[in-house]
Amino acid sequence: MARQVDVPALVESARKGAPRAVARLISLVEDGSPALRDIMAALAPYTGHAHILGITGSPGVGKSTSTNALVTALRKQGKRVGVLAVDPSSPFSGGALLGDRVRMQDHALDPEVYIRSLASRGHLGGLSAATPQAMRVLDAAGCDVILVETVGVGQSEVEIVGMADTTLVLLAPGMGDGIQAAKAGILEIGDVFVVNKADREGADSTVRDIRHMISLGDRTEPHLWRPPVLKTIADRMEGVEDVLEGIDKHMAWMTEHGELDRRRRARAAQEIEAIVLAQLRARMGDLRGGHGIGDLAAAVVAGETDPYRAADDIVAALS
Amino acid sequence: MARQVDVPALVESARKGAPRAVARLISLVEDGSPALRDIMAALAPYTGHAHILGITGSPGVGKSTSTNALVTALRKQGKRVGVLAVDPSSPFSGGALLGDRVRMQDHALDPEVYIRSLASRGHLGGLSAATPQAMRVLDAAGCDVILVETVGVGQSEVEIVGMADTTLVLLAPGMGDGIQAAKAGILEIGDVFVVNKADREGADSTVRDIRHMISLGDRTEPHLWRPPVLKTIADRMEGVEDVLEGIDKHMAWMTEHGELDRRRRARAAQEIEAIVLAQLRARMGDLRGGHGIGDLAAAVVAGETDPYRAADDIVAALS
Repeated sequence: MARQVDVPALVESARKGAPRAVARLISLVEDGSPALRDIMAALAPYTGHAHILGITGSPGVGKSTSTNALVTALRKQGKRVGVLAVDPSSPFSGGALLGDRVRMQDHALDPEVYIRSLASRGHLGGLSAATPQAMRVLDAAGCDVILVETVGVGQSEVEIVGMADTTLVLLAPGMGDGIQAAKAGILEIGDVFVVNKADREGADSTVRDIRHMISLGDRTEPHLWRPPVLKTIADRMEGVEDVLEGIDKHMAWMTEHGELDRRRRARAAQEIEAIVLAQLRARMGDLRGGHGIGDLAAAVVAGETDPYRAADDIVAALS
Repeated sequence: MARQVDVPALVESARKGAPRAVARLISLVEDGSPALRDIMAALAPYTGHAHILGITGSPGVGKSTSTNALVTALRKQGKRVGVLAVDPSSPFSGGALLGDRVRMQDHALDPEVYIRSLASRGHLGGLSAATPQAMRVLDAAGCDVILVETVGVGQSEVEIVGMADTTLVLLAPGMGDGIQAAKAGILEIGDVFVVNKADREGADSTVRDIRHMISLGDRTEPHLWRPPVLKTIADRMEGVEDVLEGIDKHMAWMTEHGELDRRRRARAAQEIEAIVLAQLRARMGDLRGGHGIGDLAAAVVAGETDPYRAADDIVAALS
């Protein structure tokens, strides 16, 4: 028999910041527990406080080191911090490649820092399907800032824009010149750009390149946010305070211009839509079990109908 | 005013193999023409003849050269051949990176060879959303074999399995040893493995590695297909006939064991499901325009409800 989950008690403990309750709630949402809906309903009134900070960048730019440095700087300000690290996983094995190794040991014993790795489990885009729910748990647990670190190449960088209030794009000298950044689509998604490993040759020209490319974009209207391009040496904590300042300025700008609300509503709408589609997909799965889709698929293979007419039949059956 | 499309006349011309009609039909389905449904309905009775051959492999293994060589060998057998080459594209620009450059000029003037590049247009997985429809056009145009070449890394290799009757995985010496292949998940998806550039050092050990890894898998039961591992030097046409023989054997095995029908029905079911989801998504978009999702998203942001309860409301409104 599955252990009964006492949702109200668990949420109450998590709200007081009890790490074990927070960890258990994230495990429950990640595993798609039957209690998921109750948990989400119980958390709802306590969400909306945390500033969601997405951190992305190509492998090798120092994402984990930078995340670690940001956590240190945020802790100095007395902030409670959550960290969600999303691992890539094989579409076949379903397992996380990096496993559950302890990340960021500097903060492992700090009760005001919640660190969690989420497996991406084949979810297209590199972010775990459970990421928004895990963010809600950390938000309700009183985190002031939640850092979502993606092992970001390509699609996941795109997806993180929908997840975060502020997206921080990390670069390293020589890896992220302007043209490459433009090709990778990261100019469009960054709210704050950080050139890490700034003691390396080429850091200033990378900064100039990125600034130049940004100035060529359509973000130069006075009411639009102009992303700062900053330099850090994260493993020596250099420049990290400036990054926090840039992030705070972006938050203030968003609040002033109604952009924060706009982003959060768009995010909630996307999330609702994803849940609706998942439910409809499950219903279709039932139809498939009941030979609904199977018979239609056989008719398509036989050339007796086409996929569009078959789809019409399914939509009619769902409605 | 948009030009009226005479679907029956166009389909009739395409069935007779007129290249311009085939090209125009593919353009119409790729652009999501209003005539798409009529076209699909008109094509349906003439589909099911072509053998769909997916070709995938990492960049640098010689995919285009191999596709070119296979077309040459198939033409020697008197087969009519279609080629769909799917280009990667930026999720932001929506444009094909490789553009519409002429591919495989060897066959550009052969009236029995239809070659077409499809842009992937940000569709997750690297295959164009129009790929199944374009395959139907080529199928109805009397192609005996349709080669679908993906610029395949990662997700698109997974997706091609659902699209093809037979999946050919290309490797090159030193790039595709067994462990790497296992990590990339390609052992599970290949029906035929080809080590191209077999004149290079390490070809035999790559073949041995792949054979060994396959023998360790769960594909050794007598009734299951045991994928051959072949060697080619595609740019010298060496070994290409053996590859065609391997492909034919796979087709014969599938037919004998009912696997061909099973795969095609699964593919049709997936396609129907994708169309249904797209339609429901469009209806949700209407709801969003009518403030249905927008209001619910605002309530989620305000903590008044949670995404699951909001989704229930939407599902109720759709049904």
